[in-house]
Amino acid sequence: MAIHKFHPKIYYNAFGTYTPVLRISDGDTVITSTVDNNGRDAADNQVTRPGNPLTGPFYIHGAEPGDTLAVHLEKLWPNRRIGRSSTVISPNVVDPEYVREMPPLEPRITAEWELDLERGTAMLIKPETNLGHFVLSLNPMLGCLGVAPPREQAISSATSGTHGGNMDYRGFVSGVTVYFPVFVEGALFFIGDGHAVQGDGEIIGTGIEVSFDVKFTVKLLKDKKITWPRAENKEYIMTVGNARPLDQALQHATTEMIRWLQADYGLKDRAAHILLGQCVEYDVGNVFDPAYTVVCKLKKRWMKAAV
Amino acid sequence: MAIHKFHPKIYYNAFGTYTPVLRISDGDTVITSTVDNNGRDAADNQVTRPGNPLTGPFYIHGAEPGDTLAVHLEKLWPNRRIGRSSTVISPNVVDPEYVREMPPLEPRITAEWELDLERGTAMLIKPETNLGHFVLSLNPMLGCLGVAPPREQAISSATSGTHGGNMDYRGFVSGVTVYFPVFVEGALFFIGDGHAVQGDGEIIGTGIEVSFDVKFTVKLLKDKKITWPRAENKEYIMTVGNARPLDQALQHATTEMIRWLQADYGLKDRAAHILLGQCVEYDVGNVFDPAYTVVCKLKKRWMKAAV
Amino acid sequence: MAIHKFHPKIYYNAFGTYTPVLRISDGDTVITSTVDNNGRDAADNQVTRPGNPLTGPFYIHGAEPGDTLAVHLEKLWPNRRIGRSSTVISPNVVDPEYVREMPPLEPRITAEWELDLERGTAMLIKPETNLGHFVLSLNPMLGCLGVAPPREQAISSATSGTHGGNMDYRGFVSGVTVYFPVFVEGALFFIGDGHAVQGDGEIIGTGIEVSFDVKFTVKLLKDKKITWPRAENKEYIMTVGNARPLDQALQHATTEMIRWLQADYGLKDRAAHILLGQCVEYDVGNVFDPAYTVVCKLKKRWMKAAV
Amino acid sequence: MAIHKFHPKIYYNAFGTYTPVLRISDGDTVITSTVDNNGRDAADNQVTRPGNPLTGPFYIHGAEPGDTLAVHLEKLWPNRRIGRSSTVISPNVVDPEYVREMPPLEPRITAEWELDLERGTAMLIKPETNLGHFVLSLNPMLGCLGVAPPREQAISSATSGTHGGNMDYRGFVSGVTVYFPVFVEGALFFIGDGHAVQGDGEIIGTGIEVSFDVKFTVKLLKDKKITWPRAENKEYIMTVGNARPLDQALQHATTEMIRWLQADYGLKDRAAHILLGQCVEYDVGNVFDPAYTVVCKLKKRWMKAAV
Repeated sequence: MAIHKFHPKIYYNAFGTYTPVLRISDGDTVITSTVDNNGRDAADNQVTRPGNPLTGPFYIHGAEPGDTLAVHLEKLWPNRRIGRSSTVISPNVVDPEYVREMPPLEPRITAEWELDLERGTAMLIKPETNLGHFVLSLNPMLGCLGVAPPREQAISSATSGTHGGNMDYRGFVSGVTVYFPVFVEGALFFIGDGHAVQGDGEIIGTGIEVSFDVKFTVKLLKDKKITWPRAENKEYIMTVGNARPLDQALQHATTEMIRWLQADYGLKDRAAHILLGQCVEYDVGNVFDPAYTVVCKLKKRWMKAAV
Repeated sequence: MAIHKFHPKIYYNAFGTYTPVLRISDGDTVITSTVDNNGRDAADNQVTRPGNPLTGPFYIHGAEPGDTLAVHLEKLWPNRRIGRSSTVISPNVVDPEYVREMPPLEPRITAEWELDLERGTAMLIKPETNLGHFVLSLNPMLGCLGVAPPREQAISSATSGTHGGNMDYRGFVSGVTVYFPVFVEGALFFIGDGHAVQGDGEIIGTGIEVSFDVKFTVKLLKDKKITWPRAENKEYIMTVGNARPLDQALQHATTEMIRWLQADYGLKDRAAHILLGQCVEYDVGNVFDPAYTVVCKLKKRWMKAAV
Repeated sequence: MAIHKFHPKIYYNAFGTYTPVLRISDGDTVITSTVDNNGRDAADNQVTRPGNPLTGPFYIHGAEPGDTLAVHLEKLWPNRRIGRSSTVISPNVVDPEYVREMPPLEPRITAEWELDLERGTAMLIKPETNLGHFVLSLNPMLGCLGVAPPREQAISSATSGTHGGNMDYRGFVSGVTVYFPVFVEGALFFIGDGHAVQGDGEIIGTGIEVSFDVKFTVKLLKDKKITWPRAENKEYIMTVGNARPLDQALQHATTEMIRWLQADYGLKDRAAHILLGQCVEYDVGNVFDPAYTVVCKLKKRWMKAAV
Repeated sequence: MAIHKFHPKIYYNAFGTYTPVLRISDGDTVITSTVDNNGRDAADNQVTRPGNPLTGPFYIHGAEPGDTLAVHLEKLWPNRRIGRSSTVISPNVVDPEYVREMPPLEPRITAEWELDLERGTAMLIKPETNLGHFVLSLNPMLGCLGVAPPREQAISSATSGTHGGNMDYRGFVSGVTVYFPVFVEGALFFIGDGHAVQGDGEIIGTGIEVSFDVKFTVKLLKDKKITWPRAENKEYIMTVGNARPLDQALQHATTEMIRWLQADYGLKDRAAHILLGQCVEYDVGNVFDPAYTVVCKLKKRWMKAAV
């Protein structure tokens, strides 16, 4: 259960079976960092090309296809004081006939936010708007989290799938454990695309983009097979579906939740259906990337009484 | 600002331009009741045919096409102790290839719930499951809320549209004000399909279905034109989109929210985009009915500072 | 088997349970006319308000819910020399990010076409384009065909459903028989929205819109239950699905085709699946209306050999 | 303009930036072969693992990102007498509530077809059905055609994208020229997944799968930038969109067609819109793979008159 301090030197723009940057063991902790979506680091220097550059891959000894990799996000925190965001809602998120009424794309205007890392706030500093003194609470989350995908694929960090990827779910914050199906030897775990704040759906195509310090701990669940990413925090268990349209993402997440309840919580027959029918919650991860993300959530308290 | 006690004698299974059951004025309050989705009343007697029977229509004096009708839901509360629900998740909510693994549809098994109206709880009493002592907190909401649709249509209370309808949104509870576009003289407001409890998406095709006592107050906003239903509570403003796939429902809701922020809150240029980008929240109303429902939400606190 | 000459005086803008304009019997033929989508008649006079005004409803004696109404389209033909169309592709048919590059909506430019009814051609006469001498062959079809919908609904002639409606399928031409489920006593059949020519999908929101002379013959199939509209011509049997997204319309049409092959053509077990797998064809009706239309087609020759 | 006879020894199951198996020049012709979807060759021997194994990649000298690769399919022809297909329609192609009525998945029954390569027919030889003497005309096509994708991705041969891939379009037959955007040096062209016959949509998840002999000629269009695959035969120009839902695939294909008409055929202003509005045709490639395929077609004759 070693603690590894890892300073990335190269970054990938896809989740694939690349040479590991670090080999770790079940139970180990990694302290590392991510650059922002544009490849800028803690000093706001451009250190790699844009497009959600990923830190990793981390090779986990003993991980094999058919296992599950659990990643506990110990701590996610911005490591610089300047964050940036887009300023126009994506045309795929509004009515097609409304697109002509949207602000023009050019000139590209980037919003800048000053992050107060002590107070935990982000303040809009440009462009000028009539939003007044616009200050948000930080909710640092990782947009990209995932493993090497199946079938020897390398899948862009702009999108997502069963391997995780660019899910842009604002529930992936410090304290959450995320589970991934292992498709290749060593699992090959990647992280990136930190957001200081993000609305549901990432509808402007960005959160408040910033470089992060990240501390995480891995745990290997041998011979534990899952189909889609799962997660849990103190209050909820969660399953994640990535697809278009949202309907299909929701189908994936819901199916994965039924499987989880039946296999691991022993909910027999119609019990999982009755429970989900009255208690399920859905969150929208992103509706911007090529694959959209829907999260199916259930409060853990409901399973406490299950016999 | 009269208070009308109205006991329904007939029920409609569609939102349409029917003869009003009661004529009321701007500011009036109505105390009435709804039967459950199957047409059973407070005494659990079948008083009309199944299929989301609606109480109404209520004619509001002075309402004309191009106005907005505001309905403040003063109080929604079950008026009997037995609630019923389905017990199998709808096949459109899971992966197509998983449907064959679902519980069979026949025999149709209906779950029964005992409602403790004093404590505000619902307890599953049949079928037997291994969920243990399964008790939920009541969250009484109306599945159906709406007005007569445009173009002389009569639209089934199984679905929804710009007129509202069967939106099955669990945020439509006591204390919320819902806004509808007025399409016909008198607006013709309808309510029905009370749920004691419901999960997001109404994924088993029902909430805990029960008859309700309902108290609401109407207010007419003359020459105020909206496109989709809107709502607000103490904390949030909300817009509603009804369509398939979910993507389109989300587009409708988001577009309506941008219009609202620009027209009524004076957010100019990109301000609404920047605000929504970091602060928007989405809820899933239903993913069961012919048209799905997505709610776009924004905390009112963000507009307080707007200049 | 009477022949009725019927000159419409009123038009409806929805498919609903309205007072019949004519009562006819099984086997009867009707010779009548339709106005164009904007309510203009054979003399190009505005005789009713715009929005796909419908001729009908025609009441068929003996038709009851659970029957099927067969309508043989004997002859569909424009009855004036001027046709009109839109000139901009609808924004929902192109990539969302491309909408900003589309021609502006205002000023609304209407194209005019001169129809040569003897030669069977349509020539673009305005606006000026660099398409050269642009002459198309007429393919007269009805955009709107259907019966009164179920549940006492009245559904706008802008959209479609199990009752048929505004399907905008360019296969609905002279010589085709279309089948509709009967939902109300008398079936209540409507027609309208003639197009002299139309591309797949009606992607500019119109065909070449023109008033029509129409001759059709009805036949009642008692106790024959279908779920979605069906059709046949000399070469094909066809089923129609109306929904969004296209995926769902295709699901409806395919399911209806499997049912047809199994029930009426005796294709047992996997025979219908094997046949459709290699021989099915799909046409896109419209991708413009609130509900899209997909047609599933199969050549009749394949069933000839079926035992 | 050399002619290369190439006998593949290795096969890839993804479109990616792999070491080329052959380097060819602009204008060269390649005579080669493909194995079937399950990795079986002309002798029906299993020579590689299943999952649409691809022949290639072929490196085209001088090809660079921003160019277009034209591939003329000179000749596609099955090279053995046994073809195989699935026998059950995929559950995503029927109504969700109909899936329970579908034939069971297990036991997996594979249909076998005897191909008469001289007469050009396929005859069903098992399982037994009541389809009678069921003989289809061959329409040999390639399910997989494409180049290495952008962003250093490797994308499974089970799906498709801007690089082409597993499009399963039954219009990709001998005599067609297909155009691909070049994303990497050398373009890296792949082929595979031959179907002797296939219905629209590949709704049972296979065509009649068989190994092929393939002859193709490449041509490089320098500094010619396209976004999605395009194609042409004697009668039509075609554009291809790959995405889910079908609506999005259709948006991609339509947008690409507008661009083509405006840039290469000089259709100015609204001319392309008016033309497509009345003359566009859509084909459904597949509705089975992770990304669906829609083809937008336009008869070349319409552009002949264009000034």
